[in-house]
Amino acid sequence: MSDNLFGKLFSFSTFGESHGPAIGCLVDGVPPRLPLSAEDIQPYLDRRKPGQNRFVTQRREADEVEILSGVFEGQTTGTPIGLLIRNTDQRSKDYGEIARQFRPGHADYTYQAKYGVRDYRGGGRSSARETAMRVAAGAIADIALRHILGSSYKVIGSVVQIGPHKIDPSRFDASEIDNNPFFCADPVAAKDWEAYLDEVRKSGSSAGAILQVTASGIPAGLGQPIYGKLDTELAAAMMSINAVKGVEIGSGFDLAAIPGEIAGDEMRAADGSDTPDFLSNHAGGILGGISSGQEIVVRLAIKPTSSILTTRQSVDLDGKDVDVMTKGRHDPCVGIRGVPVAEAMMACVLLDQLMRHKAQTGLF
Amino acid sequence: MSDNLFGKLFSFSTFGESHGPAIGCLVDGVPPRLPLSAEDIQPYLDRRKPGQNRFVTQRREADEVEILSGVFEGQTTGTPIGLLIRNTDQRSKDYGEIARQFRPGHADYTYQAKYGVRDYRGGGRSSARETAMRVAAGAIADIALRHILGSSYKVIGSVVQIGPHKIDPSRFDASEIDNNPFFCADPVAAKDWEAYLDEVRKSGSSAGAILQVTASGIPAGLGQPIYGKLDTELAAAMMSINAVKGVEIGSGFDLAAIPGEIAGDEMRAADGSDTPDFLSNHAGGILGGISSGQEIVVRLAIKPTSSILTTRQSVDLDGKDVDVMTKGRHDPCVGIRGVPVAEAMMACVLLDQLMRHKAQTGLF
Amino acid sequence: MSDNLFGKLFSFSTFGESHGPAIGCLVDGVPPRLPLSAEDIQPYLDRRKPGQNRFVTQRREADEVEILSGVFEGQTTGTPIGLLIRNTDQRSKDYGEIARQFRPGHADYTYQAKYGVRDYRGGGRSSARETAMRVAAGAIADIALRHILGSSYKVIGSVVQIGPHKIDPSRFDASEIDNNPFFCADPVAAKDWEAYLDEVRKSGSSAGAILQVTASGIPAGLGQPIYGKLDTELAAAMMSINAVKGVEIGSGFDLAAIPGEIAGDEMRAADGSDTPDFLSNHAGGILGGISSGQEIVVRLAIKPTSSILTTRQSVDLDGKDVDVMTKGRHDPCVGIRGVPVAEAMMACVLLDQLMRHKAQTGLF
Amino acid sequence: MSDNLFGKLFSFSTFGESHGPAIGCLVDGVPPRLPLSAEDIQPYLDRRKPGQNRFVTQRREADEVEILSGVFEGQTTGTPIGLLIRNTDQRSKDYGEIARQFRPGHADYTYQAKYGVRDYRGGGRSSARETAMRVAAGAIADIALRHILGSSYKVIGSVVQIGPHKIDPSRFDASEIDNNPFFCADPVAAKDWEAYLDEVRKSGSSAGAILQVTASGIPAGLGQPIYGKLDTELAAAMMSINAVKGVEIGSGFDLAAIPGEIAGDEMRAADGSDTPDFLSNHAGGILGGISSGQEIVVRLAIKPTSSILTTRQSVDLDGKDVDVMTKGRHDPCVGIRGVPVAEAMMACVLLDQLMRHKAQTGLF
Repeated sequence: MSDNLFGKLFSFSTFGESHGPAIGCLVDGVPPRLPLSAEDIQPYLDRRKPGQNRFVTQRREADEVEILSGVFEGQTTGTPIGLLIRNTDQRSKDYGEIARQFRPGHADYTYQAKYGVRDYRGGGRSSARETAMRVAAGAIADIALRHILGSSYKVIGSVVQIGPHKIDPSRFDASEIDNNPFFCADPVAAKDWEAYLDEVRKSGSSAGAILQVTASGIPAGLGQPIYGKLDTELAAAMMSINAVKGVEIGSGFDLAAIPGEIAGDEMRAADGSDTPDFLSNHAGGILGGISSGQEIVVRLAIKPTSSILTTRQSVDLDGKDVDVMTKGRHDPCVGIRGVPVAEAMMACVLLDQLMRHKAQTGLF
Repeated sequence: MSDNLFGKLFSFSTFGESHGPAIGCLVDGVPPRLPLSAEDIQPYLDRRKPGQNRFVTQRREADEVEILSGVFEGQTTGTPIGLLIRNTDQRSKDYGEIARQFRPGHADYTYQAKYGVRDYRGGGRSSARETAMRVAAGAIADIALRHILGSSYKVIGSVVQIGPHKIDPSRFDASEIDNNPFFCADPVAAKDWEAYLDEVRKSGSSAGAILQVTASGIPAGLGQPIYGKLDTELAAAMMSINAVKGVEIGSGFDLAAIPGEIAGDEMRAADGSDTPDFLSNHAGGILGGISSGQEIVVRLAIKPTSSILTTRQSVDLDGKDVDVMTKGRHDPCVGIRGVPVAEAMMACVLLDQLMRHKAQTGLF
Repeated sequence: MSDNLFGKLFSFSTFGESHGPAIGCLVDGVPPRLPLSAEDIQPYLDRRKPGQNRFVTQRREADEVEILSGVFEGQTTGTPIGLLIRNTDQRSKDYGEIARQFRPGHADYTYQAKYGVRDYRGGGRSSARETAMRVAAGAIADIALRHILGSSYKVIGSVVQIGPHKIDPSRFDASEIDNNPFFCADPVAAKDWEAYLDEVRKSGSSAGAILQVTASGIPAGLGQPIYGKLDTELAAAMMSINAVKGVEIGSGFDLAAIPGEIAGDEMRAADGSDTPDFLSNHAGGILGGISSGQEIVVRLAIKPTSSILTTRQSVDLDGKDVDVMTKGRHDPCVGIRGVPVAEAMMACVLLDQLMRHKAQTGLF
Repeated sequence: MSDNLFGKLFSFSTFGESHGPAIGCLVDGVPPRLPLSAEDIQPYLDRRKPGQNRFVTQRREADEVEILSGVFEGQTTGTPIGLLIRNTDQRSKDYGEIARQFRPGHADYTYQAKYGVRDYRGGGRSSARETAMRVAAGAIADIALRHILGSSYKVIGSVVQIGPHKIDPSRFDASEIDNNPFFCADPVAAKDWEAYLDEVRKSGSSAGAILQVTASGIPAGLGQPIYGKLDTELAAAMMSINAVKGVEIGSGFDLAAIPGEIAGDEMRAADGSDTPDFLSNHAGGILGGISSGQEIVVRLAIKPTSSILTTRQSVDLDGKDVDVMTKGRHDPCVGIRGVPVAEAMMACVLLDQLMRHKAQTGLF
């Protein structure tokens, strides 16, 4: 049941610390005979890679993934796929001074309280560096889903709010997402965010964000009641991402204030189709924990980067008061780089649920 | 890995449909030599029981739990505890007419799409009736935690918003929660909700709600990185509850707009204590997926009751358009009865995490 | 991961003690739309039922199974099936005197050492009474496999040795198995065993046994390398049965002394078939943990009944020497009643593996 | 639930093929603050390493393990330990000719039947090469157990039979095990085996073996009824090792013919000890699936090496008859190198069970 394992049939487990020799991943349950190479995975990693512009951490990592097993002559064999990325830019000296201090908002204190020891270099295991391996696993899931479901399948992640600044949903245009450094589907908001984040960075502060991930082309029926519901596992998947503090499905928290006669999405027969048309999608594509065939909609809240250039009050290993000043290279808004990670988790959950659904219902 | 199993070391699995002969539960991993009887569990069930006032469903169930195993001479033996509640008030006729229709907002359509068959009586397995067994399992977890952690341990659930009406946090008084039919800690808001819900009920509509559950007296160190984080499992636990569409920890979605120098909770040495004082709790007691020793704070959004007395558009088993009118007895706000369920899930997650924490770190 | 859960996709968990109010079972992952009723399960239980002849325990239990969920209008719904059998003939007084003594060969001492408490009535949770629920779960698996694989599928269990007396393999005739009280496929051996066991019973002793279970009509490809191999899970399944002390596949322990050129089963092309003919079956139908399409052959060794009418040396709760004399009703050879249990475990493993195989390999 | 994961709290998962770039392992649940380095693990691997004498395969691998994570400044941190061994001596050409043939006794046919593709180089994933990673994981478990249980804890594996030649139990001397190339505790038998295996090798045949693994210093109470019994998990652990076809506990299959009054190990009070003395150990240290405090005794049967220099009948990818002649370097008796693997699996099961036992029973 390893607590470092994610998924049931399609599953992956990761290892590695921010400043150790490497990070790695074991992906299991991959369908056999799927065309796959390291070149297929690399573009997903490149989307998440640090050092690409001034709004994300300036740490430079090649992040080149190596496939160590499970692929033979260009296709998967059905056996576990081992993935490895060597850490090349570690600069331990940046972090040395905080070996004995607990940075506020970080996991320093809780790791120490739990284990009585911690790898303090760059946050060790609690660093977002681990998410590179999730993106690699998610790449495999995404490639498999495209192979199985065809071109109607698509997972799209974007940032919909940075600090207090939201996008205008009426301007949402998915084709804009890769045209700015914020994965922002609203080009006007992207401009505003640029100015806002420059300000945040200069003032030594940081900003939170809200992300949205949708999946289309997902058949009705995915999700395992009662404790393996699709939304249950999406919530777990998203909440496991570093710095995420909230998850909602469809209209989410707004549903508290929406009356019942609007909240329950109505249906009508669709011309020439077995599946009905839904007249709205407050449910975010999931009813009773099972996909309805509508677009699946998840949003997640990410707290501001905890490493900031402002002096903060804390304590050290001896329980003594200290003032902590984080140096080093950090994102003013870690939420931005969460987009490829959230997309990856979405793809992993969907493939796993698809396999579990077929296993039980596809036997006769 | 049964998809009807919740938890890893302390775990429970449930069975049963709304209108079948019984609902049941198997609770495993219970510490041995814990004093326990059916009388200890019953008060937890009574808090959730339907039929207690006009704001919750008028279905009347004795909801008397029977312990079938795992308890001998008044104490637990460490073997699985089987629990059973017979369904006594089933009135199948109320539901007969919708055997072929899919009620909007319900799981009727998705269960049919998934399994090709469904027990349409009262929602079958998708009914909130199943949550009675979670409350019973949670009662055992709560009793065990009190035994292990002592009187500083306490889980408190309440409703903090119904429809658009929020409580005033400055009036929050936990001792008020049991003084009104809404599990409301703000007596002024409780009065307003009464008027509001009477209106909702009369108009044949329904209202959503936001719940808050806190846990105090929880030691630092609970939570298993990376995919068994405490907040990950709380998110899954809460999202698995019927009609929940959002979960947040601490300041949750608000953290998107809170600047980094406020969001990261600072610490100072505490007089005469090993553990530091935190100067705020935006993190909701969890950092890096591990408890910090602060109060754990979770909120969940519950959509409005889907069964309403208003005619709704839908389709039937043949894909034909139909107008659905739900009769029967229903809560105008299902969120209210979610409080004991959310408390139960909190207790189950905490006991399970405590056991996993001790297993790894308590060996030498 | 409940330690009382067996299986991954098709799974079951059981609860209940020998002399508690009831034993029960939750079966999960059952394919939907499978015709099923309590009457379909009952014959499997009747085969295992005590009190049928003088060679098995005289405890009389109706062992009538009740289906509490997961079946609607005569077919499975895909949701968990709850099963319950009330204990009707408990006669606690028979066992009262050994509340403080540890019976040699029983689990009395180890349960006490583990939990610091035990339900001493009839062995409590360690009693073979629990296996009735496995037979019920196995009945569902067997019915599902027949539905999926058709009439070529068949699981056959029998006793091949009692005490030192083996069957003559050349006389093996499966149609004889139900013609004697020993599940013996060799009618000559059955006669000998009758005389032998009468002797054993009269002398207050007991006898061990070796059982064989075969499965035919199983497609090639079932089994999950490396830690979910088909033989791995069969070994676990059989070893989990009370009193089993050994498991072997195919030629098993004999393979130590068989030279390599005989041990490796050769193949030849089969007329008019995709799958080859194997010229022998030393491997017992499993290669590399995966079924080969040949008959699957498992044997298990069961130790003699530990409850015997001879006085034995032991200690009590205070660590003082005592002489233990077990009264009550007991089988001279518990191995005999193990046959339906071993068949049930075989069917459960096969259905679970079939579902896992299809999940990974049946997607495109 | 990854099928390539072994264990529940202390767990490991492996990846890698015989002739891929590397094999690897992720070990999770390791207790924190355990002194550990690659140098501590290496001696365990060296015991298993090929190429050491003429009775094991002449493939030469440095088998140097690299620790990639989970260890910081010489001690474990509680986070997953990533282990990697690069494959250095792959000589793919040796195997090229059998890319289209199914070697009898190997997993070639079943992998092809299951996945529709296979890495045919050296058996791919089904090669015993994977067991090197188990030995590495087992090294960590063994080191942890010594730290926790002290010097009374000891796991000892040896070969007790090769082909038809058994050791004389009266000559069993554990200190002899490392004095011969067979892990043989009987120096007289070791001499005989040398002559016998030379003969086997020259004739192009191969021999099977029986191994024994014991564990002493194990406290009473380990083992989780009903489906996580200690013997259940040992059976699974051993059966998962390549070429193993049988597992027995204590007197195992012999118990079929041992009468009840001998089979049930009697107890007497022990001077100056809380725990009783057992007067025999037919149960192999396990009663009701729970350790009794006696020595734990497991034996496993390993079939003869399937790769032999004799021509064998088989079929190819097209279902056509072929004659297969395996070239390359192979052990005349693969069983010998199974000893460090079986020891490793024993240690892993014991540590995992110890953690699960403490988790449930060590809370108050």
